[in-house]
Amino acid sequence: MPECPMPDRLDHFGPELLLDVPARGTRRRAVEEALREAIRAGRLTPGTRLPSTRDLAAQLRLSRGTVAQAYEQLAAEGWLTGRSGSGTRVADGVPQPGADRTAGDRAPAVRSRPGPRHDLRPGRPDARAFPRDAWGRATRWAIREAPADAFEDGDPRGRAELRGTLAAYLGRVRGVRVDAAHVIICSGYTQALGLLADTFGGLGMTGAGMENPSMPDHVTVVAARLRVADIGVDAGGMSVAGLAESGARVAVCTPAHQFPLGMSMSPERRSELVSWAQDSAGWIVEDDYDGEFRYDRRPIGALQSRLPARTVYVGSTSKSLGPAVRLGWIACPPPLLEPLTEAKRLARPSSTLEQLALARLIDSGDYDRHLRTVRRGYRQRRDQLAATVRSRLPQARVLGIEAGLHAILELPDGAPDEATVMRRLRAASVGVHPLGAYTRGPSGHAQEGPALVVGYGTPPAHRYQAAIGALAEELRGLLA
Amino acid sequence: MPECPMPDRLDHFGPELLLDVPARGTRRRAVEEALREAIRAGRLTPGTRLPSTRDLAAQLRLSRGTVAQAYEQLAAEGWLTGRSGSGTRVADGVPQPGADRTAGDRAPAVRSRPGPRHDLRPGRPDARAFPRDAWGRATRWAIREAPADAFEDGDPRGRAELRGTLAAYLGRVRGVRVDAAHVIICSGYTQALGLLADTFGGLGMTGAGMENPSMPDHVTVVAARLRVADIGVDAGGMSVAGLAESGARVAVCTPAHQFPLGMSMSPERRSELVSWAQDSAGWIVEDDYDGEFRYDRRPIGALQSRLPARTVYVGSTSKSLGPAVRLGWIACPPPLLEPLTEAKRLARPSSTLEQLALARLIDSGDYDRHLRTVRRGYRQRRDQLAATVRSRLPQARVLGIEAGLHAILELPDGAPDEATVMRRLRAASVGVHPLGAYTRGPSGHAQEGPALVVGYGTPPAHRYQAAIGALAEELRGLLA
Repeated sequence: MPECPMPDRLDHFGPELLLDVPARGTRRRAVEEALREAIRAGRLTPGTRLPSTRDLAAQLRLSRGTVAQAYEQLAAEGWLTGRSGSGTRVADGVPQPGADRTAGDRAPAVRSRPGPRHDLRPGRPDARAFPRDAWGRATRWAIREAPADAFEDGDPRGRAELRGTLAAYLGRVRGVRVDAAHVIICSGYTQALGLLADTFGGLGMTGAGMENPSMPDHVTVVAARLRVADIGVDAGGMSVAGLAESGARVAVCTPAHQFPLGMSMSPERRSELVSWAQDSAGWIVEDDYDGEFRYDRRPIGALQSRLPARTVYVGSTSKSLGPAVRLGWIACPPPLLEPLTEAKRLARPSSTLEQLALARLIDSGDYDRHLRTVRRGYRQRRDQLAATVRSRLPQARVLGIEAGLHAILELPDGAPDEATVMRRLRAASVGVHPLGAYTRGPSGHAQEGPALVVGYGTPPAHRYQAAIGALAEELRGLLA
Repeated sequence: MPECPMPDRLDHFGPELLLDVPARGTRRRAVEEALREAIRAGRLTPGTRLPSTRDLAAQLRLSRGTVAQAYEQLAAEGWLTGRSGSGTRVADGVPQPGADRTAGDRAPAVRSRPGPRHDLRPGRPDARAFPRDAWGRATRWAIREAPADAFEDGDPRGRAELRGTLAAYLGRVRGVRVDAAHVIICSGYTQALGLLADTFGGLGMTGAGMENPSMPDHVTVVAARLRVADIGVDAGGMSVAGLAESGARVAVCTPAHQFPLGMSMSPERRSELVSWAQDSAGWIVEDDYDGEFRYDRRPIGALQSRLPARTVYVGSTSKSLGPAVRLGWIACPPPLLEPLTEAKRLARPSSTLEQLALARLIDSGDYDRHLRTVRRGYRQRRDQLAATVRSRLPQARVLGIEAGLHAILELPDGAPDEATVMRRLRAASVGVHPLGAYTRGPSGHAQEGPALVVGYGTPPAHRYQAAIGALAEELRGLLA
């Protein structure tokens, strides 16, 4: 160790470069070969800017002239290009990655498939509705005003500002009864579900009842930790009789707007579910994924308000802001607070700046305004879908459209099965999902015949009518 | 369903409010009681702004006068306050949460303990070093320039912009050999480790060798999926003999700067580890948590470049940007790309705007500049620590300080045990960790006597010398 700070030979101001210069041959040749090798191996890619000769020389403890000669030589060979002002860069068209790549390195990459021309797949909000201006304002505010402790490890439950804002917001808009101390911020419903499954497992619970049909990915997340019991759904929502029969002590459900069938849980069923939780010391996980998108009547409050001590309420920005922002929240019953906080601590906190920006977005009223705007747009799309089906496909029924961003399109008796329907729609590049994709086992849900899950959030406004028109036309052809 | 879009009776422009108005008594009384109940139950908190009388009347389908009378009555009773311009709000000091809360609701909250006065706990970067201006610029750019598809579900590996930028950056700065198609963006090392444990488990592997000592939280994450074998660490780094003996086919290690002991893995040991992976079809997980913070000599390249086909390289912004931004990256060997991408898809993508902002930060050169600035600061702190120990505590040795944000302070023969040392330091509000907190079992590491893990990132600059002075003084008192 040096006695006092040593002069900072590595200080420089251009790009960083890691270069392993072999100790054989002349220094210039060694630098040349190290650079060639780095380019050949694909480690330095075309366009990558190299350090200045001064910086690289300081870093390698060589003379500047040595490095300059190496750069010149490589430029002459076509490996590098130099333009004044923008420095030396790796040339385009250099051979890379070279033949020295390990076999298997060139395995086919995961490809993102292009979406269908008429994209009516459910679960996706309208990308064009993202409130860039409002989010930009909120983010600027957060970066400028964030207190110093936003940049260091803090409360594993998340920022107090956002927890306080959400406690008030959820009380006001969804009827949730929670104080800020019992709100835990997470990155979305999927993370919440994983943390909850860990927590319930840690408390000795072995099974969870999940609605059938429901999101397959959610079942996968829970099933990694707990045995999943499939619970049927009828017109009133999740079957509490089925739940009681399963013996599970955890019930995962979508009371506001069952996914995907679309009914809201009836008042009677809510009371039954609350009694079940009280009588069997059960826990309710309420997935309020689109509770803010209800169109025709007064919003239905969260089930959580009926039994805050045994209901875990979970919401997120996934339907309101989409994947640009990844935040969710858990209103946590007091007995679960410590284990669930520990699970979240272990998973590491969510981005503090994003948390502060969301708090600002809500506090400023911009979030309410944004929700009103998009709700209006989705309701119009919902109405267009219903009208189109009524006029061009009167044999079919549209269900579950009081709320949300998707509907169930129930095909009439005598329609071909879902696989046949899907083949035809795929051929016409109409993207919807068969209801069967959400169903586990033979008779999980109330639907009898084939049915489709139609999302109406995704297509841009100018292509929406064409998309639902194409859907109706293809189905008409099939039903004729 | 209405035949055509129905007039939007719910459209309004003030705050949203969910209110359940009972259908008994007069309408005005019912509204009053619903509001009182919402406040009493803690669902509407002091300061919460209520909708205008016009909006609430439209929502409840009552006359505006009815709602206005209810507001007036409640203001007279002290439940609400009204100021012109800012609307009607829930008054401060209203009784809440009321006696109707379920028993257990008031369980003690998780408390965030205040940190020690002299905070030298390891693993924390300097909160004041966060590059607010540069991050603000990058974020503004991302929000303004993000293509439309950044707001919809996309590639589960993350944004192509950031994957391309990172492939070039990691090649240039850490010698990593990877193309953009094999980079997976995640929320940090902890998420990466969980995804990898799931992936290896899914591929039929049952055990993972992890360095001992290491981060207990990392062991917990892996142990939730795989059996963890404790692998000793000597002066050359992780023991490959111990690894081979364990039978594990996964090796999780910190080659650049062992955490917490601080040595970098020797060239011989690297070769042994590479041979182990080749001979036993093993997988290396390289945790490059502070690879960018190396002070005294040329950076040591990532181990990954030696065997890209069997090494999973993981890095993150946790040391460079702290918890304000939560992004990490995995350079993924081709055979693992599909299962690891599926694991990440299931966990949902990381915030796309944050991804685009990080790509911009790196592309603009601001990330390199930021790293140089903080590296200079940390090196000075490191030098101060070493000098202070040398002059005031010459019996002790400082180890592992070629790199990173922490050092090992090895106490001399005859020093009290770590528990005694920690009691004294806690009493003086000096926060460090005993090395034993990272060790599993009796003799996991090369240290013989008591040792402390001292982080030098956290204290603000003006309190840093006082913090290390206090540490040295307390230890001097103990060793006297």
